[in-house]
Amino acid sequence: MQFCSDPPRVETVRTRVTEQFGIEYPIFAFSHCRDVVAAVSRAGGMGVLGALYFTPEELELELKWIDEHVGGKPYGVDVVMPAKYEGADLGDAEELVGKLQGMIPAEHRQFLENLLEEHGVEPSTESAGRVLLGWTDQTARPQVEIALKHPIALLASALGPPPADVAELAHQHGVKVGGLASNARHARKQVEAGVDIIIAQGTEAGGHTGDVSTMVLIPEVVDAVGEDTIVLAAGGIGRGRQMAAGLALGADGVWTGSIWLTVDEADTPERALPKLLAATSRDTVRSRAWTGKPARFLKTAWTEAWESEKSPGYLPMPMQFMLIADALPRIARSGDGELVTFPVGQIVGSMNQVKPAAQVVYDLIEEYVESIERLNTITEG
Amino acid sequence: MQFCSDPPRVETVRTRVTEQFGIEYPIFAFSHCRDVVAAVSRAGGMGVLGALYFTPEELELELKWIDEHVGGKPYGVDVVMPAKYEGADLGDAEELVGKLQGMIPAEHRQFLENLLEEHGVEPSTESAGRVLLGWTDQTARPQVEIALKHPIALLASALGPPPADVAELAHQHGVKVGGLASNARHARKQVEAGVDIIIAQGTEAGGHTGDVSTMVLIPEVVDAVGEDTIVLAAGGIGRGRQMAAGLALGADGVWTGSIWLTVDEADTPERALPKLLAATSRDTVRSRAWTGKPARFLKTAWTEAWESEKSPGYLPMPMQFMLIADALPRIARSGDGELVTFPVGQIVGSMNQVKPAAQVVYDLIEEYVESIERLNTITEG
Repeated sequence: MQFCSDPPRVETVRTRVTEQFGIEYPIFAFSHCRDVVAAVSRAGGMGVLGALYFTPEELELELKWIDEHVGGKPYGVDVVMPAKYEGADLGDAEELVGKLQGMIPAEHRQFLENLLEEHGVEPSTESAGRVLLGWTDQTARPQVEIALKHPIALLASALGPPPADVAELAHQHGVKVGGLASNARHARKQVEAGVDIIIAQGTEAGGHTGDVSTMVLIPEVVDAVGEDTIVLAAGGIGRGRQMAAGLALGADGVWTGSIWLTVDEADTPERALPKLLAATSRDTVRSRAWTGKPARFLKTAWTEAWESEKSPGYLPMPMQFMLIADALPRIARSGDGELVTFPVGQIVGSMNQVKPAAQVVYDLIEEYVESIERLNTITEG
Repeated sequence: MQFCSDPPRVETVRTRVTEQFGIEYPIFAFSHCRDVVAAVSRAGGMGVLGALYFTPEELELELKWIDEHVGGKPYGVDVVMPAKYEGADLGDAEELVGKLQGMIPAEHRQFLENLLEEHGVEPSTESAGRVLLGWTDQTARPQVEIALKHPIALLASALGPPPADVAELAHQHGVKVGGLASNARHARKQVEAGVDIIIAQGTEAGGHTGDVSTMVLIPEVVDAVGEDTIVLAAGGIGRGRQMAAGLALGADGVWTGSIWLTVDEADTPERALPKLLAATSRDTVRSRAWTGKPARFLKTAWTEAWESEKSPGYLPMPMQFMLIADALPRIARSGDGELVTFPVGQIVGSMNQVKPAAQVVYDLIEEYVESIERLNTITEG
């Protein structure tokens, strides 16, 4: 455990995005853990809570906690409102779950049970709990309603722009709307749909990604959306040099995610943490084996099994996760551990030490400033 | 066709690599075309000729031409000396070809013939010409001998470091040795093998690539090889903002390739050029369908067919190219054009205009300087 040092004494890092949100550093930190969100915002960046796994009631409690611990600093909430998923027209959340459960083929259930048995994972003793999560319109909309009752500064939407009425509602509350985009065409569409801030995310990122790298993507998106739209660079950013590169590519700030999985404050599962700390940048893979859409994960026996010849293939979102939801906690606590996987980007190769979140922020800024100083030496000759 | 403007009036861009080679800009340009190599070196960068496709006699003529047209500026040669390939122990080049030809399965030949017929490609009327190319030790070594008789400044080696005696020979001639690496471990091994300059190439690059992105790879390699080794950033670099990002990540210069396929001076096949100009960054794929090792190409009916259910799979290097060598010129001049593909990186999405090579160099520098100026505005506040 490192001692959390004082904030670095650096020159100001001032972009449109720090001015807009009144934050010190243009560093956005996506996390499912409220402690991380509050810690990053307190350290001068901006924490963004991923709402995906929470019921509206739970989300209310999380945000109340953040409000009490964020010291008045701004923070955001991230919801998932995919434009396309199985069951968009199948009624409310409860109805939807019932209908989709019935659509999961027996072959898939059998493949999963065999896989779990092979790896010594304990049998299921209780019925699967929440399986739909917040990645349908039906389940994300109540999250938005809760979020907008709190003093959030940003509502971000993964997997496409939020529906027009949701963007409008956010704007009525004085809340900026962010959208993740993995190509320039989608970025333009999001701006047309009312998104204020494009989070351009390269293929090296953890979680849902496209296939274009951050290096190629950022200038394309910056040029595509025009000067009036703020762009954050995401994917492969976990060190100050990468932050400098993201801004050099034309972004106004950086959006980070993976690096907060290994901070002191994180609630990363006990069996996943050592794997994350040990992994190299080559140990990830884009796979549909978790959500049904391509997302980057640790490469494990889990991702390999779903790609193997025996695999029945992937189910569409949200059915793939519904199928595996009950297995994940069992994998986390029993069996040989080989199936334990986790969404993470290629930056995992640099995540070798557990540090306080504030320290990660300060380290980013210190290396960023060193990088800029070096560039000036190079360019001035 | 643009008018080739005067060199940009910019502040100096001075790094260890410009000092070492006495060049104006830390921009390396890989090309199989001598005209491009000479043009980039004359414009203040450093052209590097890919020797792969040339016999020793042809290479002699190409280098003689460059010597006469490069205006005394430094240039380099790139050879391919893979550490692992089929037939490394099968005697000299002629013997090797005979033996490997006999090892190509009939199933693969039949799959190829069917594919060509489906796309209306004319039947073969002459026996395949050169099929082995310079990607074996047996065929690359004579290229090295020729190259070292010319005033080259750099001998680069793709697919792993050159054998120790080759590196030593280059050093005896006062020639620096470069090695392409796609991960930090390989980079370290190359330095141990006598490589002076590591070209760290991300997955977004054209041609043979690994799977780690440039954004993640460069800091890893810079830290792994230590302060005494020069690192060039490669993969996804075709604009000034990307050059700035590459240097921000810690590199001493940038290595570019794809962007020289669409310059005035390039000899890119007539049917491939419009495809390159029209492609977006999403239109490439890593495939073994050309050389047997994963390399990035335009995504076409060719790359898709080899991934389809009917595909017999790929042959190991150099047999896959031996199989297809005779088909490539036929595809280039006949049939429906859908099989026409080409090695290129994701930067292809930014290659939308044919320009003189010198103009590409100057545009890179101008945008680079703009990017550095913007970073300074941001950081000084």
